[in-house]
Amino acid sequence: MAHIYDRVALIGLGLIASSMAHAMRRAGVVGEITGYARSSDTREVAREIGLCDRVCESAAEAATGADLVVLCVPVGAMGAVAADIAGALKPGATVSDVGSVKKAVIEAVAPHIPAGVHFVPAHPLAGTEHSGPRAGFAELFDNRWCLIVPQAGSDRAAVERLEAFWQALGSNTDEMDAEHHDLVLAVTSHAPHLIAYTMVGVADDLRRVTDSEVIKYSAAGFRDFTRIAASDPTMWRDVFLNNKEATLEILGRFTEELFALQRAIRIGDGAHLHAYFTRTRAIRRGIIEAGQDTAAPDFGRVKKA
Amino acid sequence: MAHIYDRVALIGLGLIASSMAHAMRRAGVVGEITGYARSSDTREVAREIGLCDRVCESAAEAATGADLVVLCVPVGAMGAVAADIAGALKPGATVSDVGSVKKAVIEAVAPHIPAGVHFVPAHPLAGTEHSGPRAGFAELFDNRWCLIVPQAGSDRAAVERLEAFWQALGSNTDEMDAEHHDLVLAVTSHAPHLIAYTMVGVADDLRRVTDSEVIKYSAAGFRDFTRIAASDPTMWRDVFLNNKEATLEILGRFTEELFALQRAIRIGDGAHLHAYFTRTRAIRRGIIEAGQDTAAPDFGRVKKA
Repeated sequence: MAHIYDRVALIGLGLIASSMAHAMRRAGVVGEITGYARSSDTREVAREIGLCDRVCESAAEAATGADLVVLCVPVGAMGAVAADIAGALKPGATVSDVGSVKKAVIEAVAPHIPAGVHFVPAHPLAGTEHSGPRAGFAELFDNRWCLIVPQAGSDRAAVERLEAFWQALGSNTDEMDAEHHDLVLAVTSHAPHLIAYTMVGVADDLRRVTDSEVIKYSAAGFRDFTRIAASDPTMWRDVFLNNKEATLEILGRFTEELFALQRAIRIGDGAHLHAYFTRTRAIRRGIIEAGQDTAAPDFGRVKKA
Repeated sequence: MAHIYDRVALIGLGLIASSMAHAMRRAGVVGEITGYARSSDTREVAREIGLCDRVCESAAEAATGADLVVLCVPVGAMGAVAADIAGALKPGATVSDVGSVKKAVIEAVAPHIPAGVHFVPAHPLAGTEHSGPRAGFAELFDNRWCLIVPQAGSDRAAVERLEAFWQALGSNTDEMDAEHHDLVLAVTSHAPHLIAYTMVGVADDLRRVTDSEVIKYSAAGFRDFTRIAASDPTMWRDVFLNNKEATLEILGRFTEELFALQRAIRIGDGAHLHAYFTRTRAIRRGIIEAGQDTAAPDFGRVKKA
């Protein structure tokens, strides 16, 4: 395929950036990939596994001459990184990011973007509970959604070029405004993560049930929570601190509903429980039909040898 | 392999019973499998797919002459089924069950068990979000735990025979008393299920985010909740109504912790969040090391064609 960007700079070399590097190579849509990570250990690993064509010693060096610069750092670090690279950006370049929160990232990054450089925020909805430069794989974005959040006055050609790039990496793309993005993600990702973290913490606290029992007998329900609750702590701390209002709104509604169900259990209202569970089952069917998960009866898990 | 039981009767022909039938055939440890389901449609399907050697027209008929009778009905129906089969049980037979709650099942079933018949409750920790006689597959119990809950005065030979049976079906087995079982399961399964049901219901209620958005963008976090929340409504209604105390205790602790984390978000206490998330991540590692899930970076999901 023809190159969509001649040079792409990845700032931050964790799970998402390393998966992007593999997916760019698989697609053959980029000339050169440069990279930078704050930790010298991470840079060392990236060099060792040949993740980028060049691993640089500063974010500005990696960004120099790049046609696309993607900020792949925790949401709380985006502003500082944008300030670091501002002077190195070439005219006509596009700056994007992969943050899970959009309003706060835009507020932090936009003021640093020089005139003549396009800023097109984005958020690929993909991840695993692993982190670091060795965690990436080319298929991470396949058939997942990447939400593009154009800014008022964004250059349409720059927006569409970034969309073509993410499509070449395997994603579907949609456009959305930042406020709506943050609410949708609070529902589909941020609140569920906090809930999973909480439940796993409760299990660990309960002295009458040993951790070893929790771990051995976790096949039914809890196992899925632990996978969510194993995600990168720094990334998630920043998500919650930077999508505060929407997350707290959803959690407020959640506890309200939970109390209603707890009350139904306490008073033995089986009809209420049955009706609620029947309704939620239908939503699951919609997700399978939308192709975002497998209906395989073993949950599609690979058997251990 | 030699027969562990010459004849096994399955009362109720849903996901667990149908998986047991497939696993018994795979292991070759049973002479004849009889079965019964209350719904004539279910019996018809079971006959059509050859699930059992004989599908009977009553629970008593299926239980007649069986060496092992397994009650595979929702927890709330166990007592009535035990009453139905009591007169048909042969001396020396074992009655067991697969209920997710043990104290309530024992209280409902034990009074109906005639002298000379062994009652050995059990709970295979395995399941999917699918139900019915077509949902079963032989591998469901492989490398999962089956908890055996012997009664005071239980015949050891009968207990060990049931354990050998579950091991032949692929499970690991452990023994536990009923009260502790119900607490462990409240933590690892019952509370997580209620929480997942709740979160999915909240998402569905939120008018500013469409169901279609929830479904399309559910890859990150929410998807796992929907899988849990798609489990059989009748089974789960009965679980909550019959493990009320332990479930409400765990949910109480859960909301307490959740409020503390919500407060940390509200006041911007990033250190508290980071420490909490780091701790929960370690629990996940334990589960992978215990072999109860895969560490594959794509969550082990099978790609859709």
